[in-house]
Formats: sequence, C-alpha cells, structure tokens
Amino acid sequence: MILFDRIAIVGVGLLGGSLALACKDRGLARHIVGYGRSRENLETAVRRNVIDAYAGDLNEAVKDADLIVLCAPVGSFKTLTRMMLPSVKPGAILTDVGSVKSSVTRDLEPLLPGSVHFVPGHPIAGSDKSGVASADKDLFVGAKCVLTPSVPLDPMGSEPVADKHGRGQSKSGQFAPARSPSANADRTALGRVAALWEGVGMQVIYMDPEEHDYIFGAVSHLPHVVAFALVNAVAGLSSQKHGPVTGFCGNGFKDVTRIASSDPAMWRDICLANKGPLLEFIDRFQETLGQIKTSIETGEGDRLERSFAMANKHRSRICEGTNDYRD
Amino acid sequence: MILFDRIAIVGVGLLGGSLALACKDRGLARHIVGYGRSRENLETAVRRNVIDAYAGDLNEAVKDADLIVLCAPVGSFKTLTRMMLPSVKPGAILTDVGSVKSSVTRDLEPLLPGSVHFVPGHPIAGSDKSGVASADKDLFVGAKCVLTPSVPLDPMGSEPVADKHGRGQSKSGQFAPARSPSANADRTALGRVAALWEGVGMQVIYMDPEEHDYIFGAVSHLPHVVAFALVNAVAGLSSQKHGPVTGFCGNGFKDVTRIASSDPAMWRDICLANKGPLLEFIDRFQETLGQIKTSIETGEGDRLERSFAMANKHRSRICEGTNDYRD
Repeated sequence: MILFDRIAIVGVGLLGGSLALACKDRGLARHIVGYGRSRENLETAVRRNVIDAYAGDLNEAVKDADLIVLCAPVGSFKTLTRMMLPSVKPGAILTDVGSVKSSVTRDLEPLLPGSVHFVPGHPIAGSDKSGVASADKDLFVGAKCVLTPSVPLDPMGSEPVADKHGRGQSKSGQFAPARSPSANADRTALGRVAALWEGVGMQVIYMDPEEHDYIFGAVSHLPHVVAFALVNAVAGLSSQKHGPVTGFCGNGFKDVTRIASSDPAMWRDICLANKGPLLEFIDRFQETLGQIKTSIETGEGDRLERSFAMANKHRSRICEGTNDYRD
Repeated sequence: MILFDRIAIVGVGLLGGSLALACKDRGLARHIVGYGRSRENLETAVRRNVIDAYAGDLNEAVKDADLIVLCAPVGSFKTLTRMMLPSVKPGAILTDVGSVKSSVTRDLEPLLPGSVHFVPGHPIAGSDKSGVASADKDLFVGAKCVLTPSVPLDPMGSEPVADKHGRGQSKSGQFAPARSPSANADRTALGRVAALWEGVGMQVIYMDPEEHDYIFGAVSHLPHVVAFALVNAVAGLSSQKHGPVTGFCGNGFKDVTRIASSDPAMWRDICLANKGPLLEFIDRFQETLGQIKTSIETGEGDRLERSFAMANKHRSRICEGTNDYRD
C-alpha cells in the first residue's frame, strides 16, 4: 500500500539503499529518487533497481518529494537541509536515519518553515558493511526504530502509532487532541513516518532526543570508539622473530573489533555530534579498565575474578534480553 | 595410531575434554583418565565417553600416565605439579594448554626431576564457552598450537617435528645432534607432544615463551580485559524513562563483548601470569583511546576520521590474513 507518492533518499548507501529497496519491495512508494555526491554510486543504485532515478542536483532531487530521508553522515545534515529548503514543497516531511538525535534536532528545526514537518528518526539497523552494494531489502525486519518527535505526545500518555493509512493515532485508537493545526499536521507526519518504518518490518518506539543519545552513546557509540582504539593499539606491535602480532589474531580479536570496520566519516560525525555523553562514557570506561589494571598490578586475584564474573553475568543477561537491536 | 598408552587429563573442561575426545576419536591414546575438583563434572565426562575413567585423587590419576596434560587454570599448575610429582613415573611427559608460557615454565621447570620431560604448550583453540559440556572432538582442527620448548632446537635451524612414530625429528629428517642423553629425551618428548597436537588436527609452531606472551598478551589478553571492562562500564547505566541502557544493546555490542563471557578464574590467572606485557598493552590502549577522546573534545574531525580509517584498514588486513588462530 502506497504511503508516499515520491520519496527522495539523500545519501544512497547501506541505510538509504536498503530503505529504498524495502519500500519498492513492499510497494510503499510510487517513485524513489536518490541523491548523493558520487554519480557512479547513484548510477549503480539505478542499475541495481535500488532507486527509480537519481538527480545530480539536490534541489532537483527533493522538489516533488512528499518524504525526504537524510541518509548521509549526520555532520552534513545542516548544510544539506539549507541547500534543499528552497525546493522543498509545503507539507513535505523531512526525516533522517542519524545515530544521534539531539544535535540533529537542534540543528535542523530552526531552519525549517512551519510547512515542512521534521520527524527525527534512528532505525537501529546497521552493519560494519557500508555502501549501496550492501543494501538489503530486509535489513530492517525485526529491528527497532527510534523516533524522537518534538510534537507533544498524546496527553493520555499513550504514544502515537500509525493506523493502516499511516495517520497519526494514539494507542487508544483515538486521535490525540491537537494543540494547533500545525501540531496536528506534525502528529500526522509522525504517524506517516512511523507507518513507513513499520511497513519495512520495524517496531517503532518513541524517545526524547536526549534519552536516545544517552542510551546509544553507551551501548553503541562507546563500543565503536573502543573497537577503533583496540585495533590501532595492537596494529603497530611487532614481535622479534614472528613479525606483526596481528598475524596471530584469532576469532576473539576479530569479533571484538568487527565494528571497527564501520564507516569512518559516519562515525566521526556521530562521535562529534554526541560529544557530551560519549566523553562521559569514555571516562567511565577508562575508570573501569583502570580498576582492572590496578587489580592486575597489585595481584588482587579475587577482585579481578569478581570483576570478570560480574561481566559474565551482565553479558548473559544482555544476551538473554529479547531485544532486536542491530548496530 | 596410538601415540600414548595412558594419558592423564588434569582439569576436564572445554580444552581438556576436547583433547580427550579428539584423542579417542583418532585412536591416539589407549586409556584416558581424568582428574578435577568436581566429581560431578568427572562423572558427566565418563558418562559422555569424554574420558575412560576418572580418579578422585591426583596421584592416583597420574601414577601410570605416559602423558600428563595440565588443563586447569594456569594459577593452579604449580600446586598441582607439586602434589602429583611423587606419583609421576620416570620418563613421563608433562605438558599444558595454558595461555601464558613464561611464568608456567619459570614455575614448573625447577620442580621437575630430569626423568620428567616438560613441554609447555598453548593450543590456540578456545571459546567463550567453558566446561566439559562444550567439549568438541574437532575443536583443534585447522588451528595452531604453540609449543615453547626449553630444549635447544636443531642447530641447523630447522624446528623439531614429529615423524609417524611421534619421535622427535628435525625437518631435515635427521635427528638433531643431542647435547646430552637428557636433551635427546627432551627432544623426543617434544616430538611426541607435537605429534599429539598434529594428530588432533593442529599445526604446531615453536616460540620462545617470552615471544608467545608478548604476542598473545596483545592479540588475546588485552582484548579480553577490554571486553570485560566494557560490559562493566555500561552495565550500571540506566536511562530516565527507558530503564537500563543494556536493554538496547544490539549485535554490535554483543560481538564486541562476546569474549567477556569467558571463564573468570581462567582469565584471572592469565592476567596475573602475563602481568608485564599486559599492563604495558593496557597503557598503550588507554593512550590510543585517550587520543581519540582528545580529538572528540577538541572537535578535530579530520584527525578522528584518520584514526577510524586506519583502524578500518588494519582490520581488513587482519581479516584477510590466512591465519587460523582461535580465541
């Protein structure tokens, strides 16, 4: 069922490409146009039927779009939005797939006229792979999508979800009382974006941008930074007779560092945009590691074992958890 | 082909159990007896035909053994060896599967009479699983086993390998000139232990204990410590409205921390036994992470991206590597 007549995907990589494929596969959009910096990449995307067409010019790409999805690194959102605004049609919905939400909301909302409805989003589906070549129509199936709307949620406390027609609705089944026509329009936009992500197989949940950045700063951004650092710390080391120590890396090392193969530019932007929480978590991690280091230095075996056993226990709980979060 | 008439496995867990299963499966031993602290575990091992029999007493377990394999946490090796020595028969071979080699060699060699031949070993095959329940007859297939013999290797520079009869032999096919009868006996013992690991599917390589501990301190011990610390750093955090942040952990987090499910007592001993290199590597890692932290603090995006890109590149190289190391 068509949810959007025309969708513009800005940044046709793993997420943008997968969203386009998923929409085409499920018939959620009539026409999907892609925009990106690399014409070669866009031509590949068209050739592989990931998108219906591409535009070499951003304004060209968005001018007829009912939905514009920012799938580029978050650091480029502000510039891209500024560039496209003159061509965005009234009533159009702007959303994104960025892994940080506070800064994105802070950056974009002041730029937008009331006639453009912004719905910040974060589909928790990624991978260490990147690029349209890795695009997958089922990337989002079973995973969760976090939306961080600025519209006041249903005062009854139930969160807006989408009905079959993608209209914003409260869980009670009643439309929530709108504060204003624009609030109502924003709520409708929210419902339509929720319907899109549900349409490609995700479970939509709602958060404050700050909560989102705190949570994912801890469970996603910190681990990425740690993995990048671990690879770089070990990569330079060489043994006297057996060459680089990395020649002896096993599955353990490969798993620990898998996410260190994630896209550098994307993660540069995420780290800078979620600076506050991330720096706090890096300190916290350094402290925890420092305590382990002290136990080793002082030979406190019991303390060391307790700390490892605690990690064991926590991780089992985490893995027993029924959540379906991806990278 | 029978390599050893009677093998005693001291510590029937994942590695000890897997070695017993692998030997029985390939007919490398006539009789395998197990010893451990938990009678229940030993009974399970016998019931599952992992071992032929078990002894509730260590001296009972080793008294007729041609080969004794220490598969307990490395911290217990010294005590166990002291306890068993009165019953170890002359000519018996003592080996181990410990993940550290310098301290093990330093601890055990002074205890041993010339009639007992010690061959320090480290089969690079582990897992985050532990216990005899996870024992697997093919755990070692395709992986490498590091032996750190104290006997002088063949002066021709070729390393001792085993012939079909498990006799120590140089790659040249000639027995290396023995410095003394006992050196020759040690070399023969080395060849027989090499034959055992090759018999269960491993490729045997030779290293100095110090080289071994430096290399695996970097590619295995450091990542484990980092993973334990990462789980503990994140586990305590809770978001205002959505509960513990770990409820939002995804595959990325689960992979990064998989080895944090490894056996706490085993890793306590490894960390304490490889203190020197490990502390050096923890410092090095914290420095690398500190540099990333600084780039985030100061907003040096280019520096941050370069560091992430470098990790990308190194990791691709590591994964392209044809090595077969396990945990």
